[in-house]
Amino acid sequence: MKKLLNNPTNVVEEMLEGYVKAHPDYIKQLPENQRSLVTVRETRDDKVGILIGGGSGHEPGFMGYVGEGMADGVAVGNIFASPSPDPILEVTKAIDKGAGVAYLYGNYAGDVMNFGMAAEMADLEEEIQVQAALATDDVASAPKEEQEKRRGIAGELFIFKAAGAAAEFGYDLENVIRVAEKANANTRSMGVGLSPCSLPQTGEPSFELGENEMEIGLGHHGEPGIEKGPLETADHVAERLVKDILEDMPINQGEQVAVLVNGLGSTPRMELYLIYRRVEQLLAERGIVVYRSYVGDYITSLEMGGCSVTVMKLDEELKQTIDHPVNCPMFVQK
Amino acid sequence: MKKLLNNPTNVVEEMLEGYVKAHPDYIKQLPENQRSLVTVRETRDDKVGILIGGGSGHEPGFMGYVGEGMADGVAVGNIFASPSPDPILEVTKAIDKGAGVAYLYGNYAGDVMNFGMAAEMADLEEEIQVQAALATDDVASAPKEEQEKRRGIAGELFIFKAAGAAAEFGYDLENVIRVAEKANANTRSMGVGLSPCSLPQTGEPSFELGENEMEIGLGHHGEPGIEKGPLETADHVAERLVKDILEDMPINQGEQVAVLVNGLGSTPRMELYLIYRRVEQLLAERGIVVYRSYVGDYITSLEMGGCSVTVMKLDEELKQTIDHPVNCPMFVQK
Repeated sequence: MKKLLNNPTNVVEEMLEGYVKAHPDYIKQLPENQRSLVTVRETRDDKVGILIGGGSGHEPGFMGYVGEGMADGVAVGNIFASPSPDPILEVTKAIDKGAGVAYLYGNYAGDVMNFGMAAEMADLEEEIQVQAALATDDVASAPKEEQEKRRGIAGELFIFKAAGAAAEFGYDLENVIRVAEKANANTRSMGVGLSPCSLPQTGEPSFELGENEMEIGLGHHGEPGIEKGPLETADHVAERLVKDILEDMPINQGEQVAVLVNGLGSTPRMELYLIYRRVEQLLAERGIVVYRSYVGDYITSLEMGGCSVTVMKLDEELKQTIDHPVNCPMFVQK
Repeated sequence: MKKLLNNPTNVVEEMLEGYVKAHPDYIKQLPENQRSLVTVRETRDDKVGILIGGGSGHEPGFMGYVGEGMADGVAVGNIFASPSPDPILEVTKAIDKGAGVAYLYGNYAGDVMNFGMAAEMADLEEEIQVQAALATDDVASAPKEEQEKRRGIAGELFIFKAAGAAAEFGYDLENVIRVAEKANANTRSMGVGLSPCSLPQTGEPSFELGENEMEIGLGHHGEPGIEKGPLETADHVAERLVKDILEDMPINQGEQVAVLVNGLGSTPRMELYLIYRRVEQLLAERGIVVYRSYVGDYITSLEMGGCSVTVMKLDEELKQTIDHPVNCPMFVQK
């Protein structure tokens, strides 16, 4: 796959340089690690700090979500790889306002290890209280009985948003984490992959699929899904994804949900709106009300083809968090 | 190329159905034509109406730019084809508040004909005053001496934004058009294509390029550019695009500009930020100050690979328009 690159070894550093230059009114790098980015705004004393992070290649996730209503800082990893503990710790120190820091990230072994080490260091060296909430929204990645083994994918957007708003509301660390965990417990995602991406360093496709094949449940680093099959219509794909979500998390008639149709990188918005159209119909048939919807590229996998559907069940508290305004370089909500 | 579609014949109607369902708090269809979309907000009496339009397949352009600070309505064409006069006229009637309507669109023969017919019908049948401003920002599409023959590409974003803000400021039709034309006169774009898109109806690639080839100046429907050559580094591509822009529109040291690095559909944000990084360096070396920047997919060509760079020279009036808040389904600026 053709890419606009310089030296592939420096791609993350160059991306960050361009990013900070493009949005100096939003974000800055910290002095010790170029991979440590924090908001430029002054946050309130006693506000719980929100720290997100993960590998690069998922833009707007994660660096795009630092700002009002979302995260206060982000630790940036290599492409599809966890950030190391150093930048996580540096961001932690920068955003702690005396009320502790919430770590929000997807459930991947590397992230669990590195964020865990940083949390320990923050506690021992800096006496900063850290608690973590992990995203495990990907239905395809483990059976229902082993939900704690599931990966985090596009539903991370809702978890960041819920916790980010809770922190702005003045919730303490325990309650910010409670809201993030509730958001995660109420959120399910299912994706479909149509075409691979390639890493800048290798240029090799991240997985193989036949010319008319798709893969249900593909992970957003190309992890194998549940099954491969022939490419179906947009309506059939939407039906399959919604079916798997609702079987895993039953939703009663009259309940309200937030919906995200997320593009993986190279899927036109036109196709995402076709998927949304059928998702909304399927929910409406069951008397489920879409309270708010998002359609676009929110957590990508470089130029991967395909999309995911995410549904979050809402109560009054989650509705307040989803309505709360956001002002980040790659995500603004009035 | 694999696509998430149902019957390709209905793709625009299904997209619009999904779009309106996803954003009922922003946009609605008019009764006569499904291709006529207008804002749901009540605009002020005597506000000049802003009507944009063009082919589908450029999302977020054009339907994504209806809302506060941008357009009041959009007429939607088939993929890469002009809307017909009927929806243009229906939108015109719906958004006229007694102060006339400004038509803003790219300089393509089909659009010129159909928007022109609609303007005549609006005048003769409805006594609505219409004036048009065309985007001609694509440096590659005609020589400097024949600027009126140039196509409109990503710079349309700035022209819509300038005119949209001017209408909110309470400018009359003549002055809204004056601002749009100034924005266009001060805006230049240059693009590079890396890989084609394919139309849903045919599945055929929109153009051919070798495995390690790129095309400088490619149009956003796949129109031929200035030259084909081997794929270069991100820095070299940025240098070439900026060089062509500044040769066409000299900018003095100390002048301020708005910059847009626009992805064509399948180019990751990571690569767009690499391009922005070098663009900003090149401008800074010449003492040109970036007042505001936009990096992302603003006017696409389905899943085409590549990007464009747009530079708009700013005076005080254009700065005010570029700073004005926006609230549209696919573009929010605080």
